Amino acid sequence: MKNNQYVLLISGDEILGGRRQDAHIHFLTNALSPIGLQCRQCVLVNDKLEDLTEVIRFAFEKADLLIMTGGLGPTVDDLTREALSQAMDISMQLQPEVLDAIRERFRMMSKSMTDNNQRQAFVPVNGFYIPNPNGTAPGLVFDKNDKIAVALPGPPRELEPMVVNDVIPFLKKRLQIPSQTLSIQMHFSCIGESNVDQLLRDMTNGDHEIVISLLSRPALVDLKLAYPQDLPAFQQRLHHYVQAIRRDIGAFLYSEDGGELEEKTGALLAQRRETLCVAESCTGGLLGAQIVSVPGSSDYFLGGIIAYSNSAKQNLLGVRADTLQTYGAVSRETACAMALGAVQRFGADWSAAVTGVAGPTGGTPQKPVGTVWIAAANKNGAVYPFCAQFTPGRQTIRQRSAVYALDQLRRLLSQIEPHQ
Amino acid sequence: MKNNQYVLLISGDEILGGRRQDAHIHFLTNALSPIGLQCRQCVLVNDKLEDLTEVIRFAFEKADLLIMTGGLGPTVDDLTREALSQAMDISMQLQPEVLDAIRERFRMMSKSMTDNNQRQAFVPVNGFYIPNPNGTAPGLVFDKNDKIAVALPGPPRELEPMVVNDVIPFLKKRLQIPSQTLSIQMHFSCIGESNVDQLLRDMTNGDHEIVISLLSRPALVDLKLAYPQDLPAFQQRLHHYVQAIRRDIGAFLYSEDGGELEEKTGALLAQRRETLCVAESCTGGLLGAQIVSVPGSSDYFLGGIIAYSNSAKQNLLGVRADTLQTYGAVSRETACAMALGAVQRFGADWSAAVTGVAGPTGGTPQKPVGTVWIAAANKNGAVYPFCAQFTPGRQTIRQRSAVYALDQLRRLLSQIEPHQ
Repeated sequence: MKNNQYVLLISGDEILGGRRQDAHIHFLTNALSPIGLQCRQCVLVNDKLEDLTEVIRFAFEKADLLIMTGGLGPTVDDLTREALSQAMDISMQLQPEVLDAIRERFRMMSKSMTDNNQRQAFVPVNGFYIPNPNGTAPGLVFDKNDKIAVALPGPPRELEPMVVNDVIPFLKKRLQIPSQTLSIQMHFSCIGESNVDQLLRDMTNGDHEIVISLLSRPALVDLKLAYPQDLPAFQQRLHHYVQAIRRDIGAFLYSEDGGELEEKTGALLAQRRETLCVAESCTGGLLGAQIVSVPGSSDYFLGGIIAYSNSAKQNLLGVRADTLQTYGAVSRETACAMALGAVQRFGADWSAAVTGVAGPTGGTPQKPVGTVWIAAANKNGAVYPFCAQFTPGRQTIRQRSAVYALDQLRRLLSQIEPHQ
Repeated sequence: MKNNQYVLLISGDEILGGRRQDAHIHFLTNALSPIGLQCRQCVLVNDKLEDLTEVIRFAFEKADLLIMTGGLGPTVDDLTREALSQAMDISMQLQPEVLDAIRERFRMMSKSMTDNNQRQAFVPVNGFYIPNPNGTAPGLVFDKNDKIAVALPGPPRELEPMVVNDVIPFLKKRLQIPSQTLSIQMHFSCIGESNVDQLLRDMTNGDHEIVISLLSRPALVDLKLAYPQDLPAFQQRLHHYVQAIRRDIGAFLYSEDGGELEEKTGALLAQRRETLCVAESCTGGLLGAQIVSVPGSSDYFLGGIIAYSNSAKQNLLGVRADTLQTYGAVSRETACAMALGAVQRFGADWSAAVTGVAGPTGGTPQKPVGTVWIAAANKNGAVYPFCAQFTPGRQTIRQRSAVYALDQLRRLLSQIEPHQ
């Protein structure tokens, strides 16, 4: 292998056409760098057989390992199999058990399998296939003359578990990669990426071995710190950084084990054997949906009211007409009344309420688009409101609002000072 | 120009290292496709002069236009200028007014200009520079022997206005972009990608000019049919295909103008001046959130009940205890009672209800994970239930459920036979 480098090839007609955003580069580079594999180059290529085979040959001049994503589906656009087979001179054969698994998948969905799905059951003669528990297309490994290509299906929920469970163990063994690296992850809510970045720059200044990876999602920041080897000197430095981060921005730190904010908040409720409900206006159900995304959330989540109209706020949450009239639907008073009304209706221990101006219209000089009032309440009648001001963009305002509401609950449940 | 195609080169050490996410591909492909420029390939390359020049030469074999981002800063890592100068054999010269602008910028920030910032004032002899109102590095256009390279600074807030205000007008003029290609889009719900694909294969068999692009999202399929030129012969063929698609799978076709399912359903309601509410169990608010994602949805969407617990189903939706006991929470009877209860509580014209087993636990032999009952109802007491069986995966079961519920409404509102 040339310096444990690889080339990433993304079959990307939809991405090159501007219709979809890439969802693989960050995941893959992050998953493979901890085992010492460096991405030398990444190419997004269209679904033309000629271009694909040419790029594969070009890539193998740069590295002996190729990771390819997409193009493994059943349709004529799906040419990854053919391209790798041609470029690497490896023939394909029908694998009966793969065909059976595809048939079984269709049977479970009570759908009939079309002929083109057979294409997905062809496997390289020099190589093997990786079962895909979340879809029909298996992953394929082509392995000949010390050139290796790993082809994975495009949907992230299919690709990601295959990388973690199959590809990384295979590559470690096949490339005889020494096992140990050292890394930790920390996840933050309701803090800017640049704040975390600045803190880390100051802190790690002069540390040339550390690898820092920062990823921001709406109102969330994911941090990974890694060293190439698990040595006592690196352990010591890492420990020092973690301590300093906890001290300086600990209130924003919701997870150190990869758990999501909704899981952490849910776990706090489950621990306390308490229950939760929601009252949502501009989020329209997004907060409830995020809470329910956690398996087992029925242990603590009772439900919610989506009070999008003012009449729903009155009839279903008991917000008073004069509150709405005097202060408006987006106000401290309405948010508090929604949170308290929800606790009562559901008989829950806790509630979270969101009401805001998601835009694009409806903003005023006093309450511009992006103004969101959030309140958490408990069954004792205590209520914790705060106002957030987000930059415009209807969907991100709504996503951030849901995160801020969850974060208010997390803070209250873990005795951290709430947002005010 | 070769078919108005371009190659996108991203100077991406930080992205390849997993430290940052790409922020250019989606913006650029989307900005350039409306003027008829197609991204043939996109390469993320590291900041090594040798790799950069090689990739530039490789790219010019594919297209006569190159768009490059990043690597225009003042440091030794910033090699885009050198690489383009070498690969295209164009020399650089110091441009005094650019140097003045950089000096002025530093003066305004009360910082002293370091010597390496001079690098940013070099401009190609065959070409010109694009002023950068938001940063120090100007954009550079290299233009020689009908090969054009446009190099832009990396920060999106610098790059994006330069693309809109300078790059697009320049390219339109320089490439004398002819008017039209021919393309249509069609969007389908609740049908398999392979079913659409099979129909298209049969239909377009032997048509070598058509470009078919299929993209699947949970329970949705996006189709694009395109011809390279807007000729009467192509118009005729396209018309023929569209007619056949409408005839064969028209019930699944929800949009021909790019509008999303939730927009189409909302528009049908707005047209009829009718209102909608939802009752959600396993989706936990996802259906409501999808409806509210449409700006202006307050015209027809009143709100919803997230009835995750059985007690919420009883207390807030009026589902009878013996219905839950006899048939279970996931049943035709419960879904119908939820839909009818919601219509009543909200005083809405229409409702949609979802109750299902999202998993990973809670499945039984009779009702395995993925069993979802969906019902739409109207204020006259008519109710339209059906059962969907999805393949496991908690989040996709929930996403598909929301789409199927919206689709039931769409069908009813447009007098298409409902799901049964």
